[in-house]
Amino acid sequence: MANFGFDDFRLVDPYDAAFREAVSAVGGAHVLQNARVFCTLAEAVADCSLVLGTTAGQHRVPQQTVERLEVGMIAARSHPGRVGLLFGSEKFGLSNEDMSFCHGLVRIATSADTPSMNLGQAVAVCLYELVRAGTDLGAGTSADPFSPVSGSDSEQITRMLLEVLEKSGYLNRIIAISTEQKVRRWIRRLRIGRRDGPLLLGILRQVLWKFNNPE
Amino acid sequence: MANFGFDDFRLVDPYDAAFREAVSAVGGAHVLQNARVFCTLAEAVADCSLVLGTTAGQHRVPQQTVERLEVGMIAARSHPGRVGLLFGSEKFGLSNEDMSFCHGLVRIATSADTPSMNLGQAVAVCLYELVRAGTDLGAGTSADPFSPVSGSDSEQITRMLLEVLEKSGYLNRIIAISTEQKVRRWIRRLRIGRRDGPLLLGILRQVLWKFNNPE
Repeated sequence: MANFGFDDFRLVDPYDAAFREAVSAVGGAHVLQNARVFCTLAEAVADCSLVLGTTAGQHRVPQQTVERLEVGMIAARSHPGRVGLLFGSEKFGLSNEDMSFCHGLVRIATSADTPSMNLGQAVAVCLYELVRAGTDLGAGTSADPFSPVSGSDSEQITRMLLEVLEKSGYLNRIIAISTEQKVRRWIRRLRIGRRDGPLLLGILRQVLWKFNNPE
Repeated sequence: MANFGFDDFRLVDPYDAAFREAVSAVGGAHVLQNARVFCTLAEAVADCSLVLGTTAGQHRVPQQTVERLEVGMIAARSHPGRVGLLFGSEKFGLSNEDMSFCHGLVRIATSADTPSMNLGQAVAVCLYELVRAGTDLGAGTSADPFSPVSGSDSEQITRMLLEVLEKSGYLNRIIAISTEQKVRRWIRRLRIGRRDGPLLLGILRQVLWKFNNPE
């Protein structure tokens, strides 16, 4: 919960009264400490205008439609009021009674053979989906777009590599006539970044120097 | 892993030799039983032509671009070869050495105050994203015919290039301690194709031969 910025943790009739002392992940202690305990689900979701229950979707015929998590979370994000996300016990999931408090049911698209998830992992996946970047992926990313080496640097690399090939005796081994074009195409096919250009040129220069100055 | 249909679990030098007897979730026992243990990361990713490392993205300035998980998984889904998803220890994450084996780094968009996730939850979120319904977005795109070099060929190129750098005297010019990782990262950053691997190895081999056989 803390990883994805949520802190309103509510428990209904928990079995373990000592849950507050449970060892929590780094940064999650405040979530446990501020957890609120309710005797009934009705009280726990009293201030929520949308309650979404989670289910593995097996072993029972739900009286409600089960949506994929992605679809349910779109509804949750656009909901104008408080949204409750409801998880059952790891062993039994939500009862039919519990589900009757839900406006909708969602399920994580797990493999058909292994639908039942670890509770903590299911919560992580649901909250991740809830805050996940939707269609506007580009907006929040800080990834630098790939910035390729200039055409003139590419050509300088090509020329210098050809010189290395010639001086090392490599050129004789391949059909000479097409080598220059082959090397040129190859240098362009590699995604050589702007910062890589000087590095590659420096290496080639040093190799040539060594050819000319053997010990 | 079992929840999302993955079963190729690999461990590098695990601390706990008894991990196979760990209590696994319902349906996950076969993943643990079939786990393979490797002494080094290089061996573990030898057959992977794309390795994506995971990071909380804090406490170090990575020399590699860190993409959002959503973006990295688009690349993973469309990759034509075997993809490795690399997780560090829960406590320390991946080392700089580990990261130098990665073609890219991804991070889950966690809250800035609490970036560090429980390992199992991080794995669940990453695999969920990998098989998430978003695949319909990429379904229509024409497949990139680029077929990348294998992890073991990448490593052989790295080793041979390091030898060239050393023999040519280039290594003295740059800070020696970080060079190996730098070169390894660089080789992964270049998009070296499957056909390019033997070509590049041939060139490096010839350069080394020339160093040893000056006129």
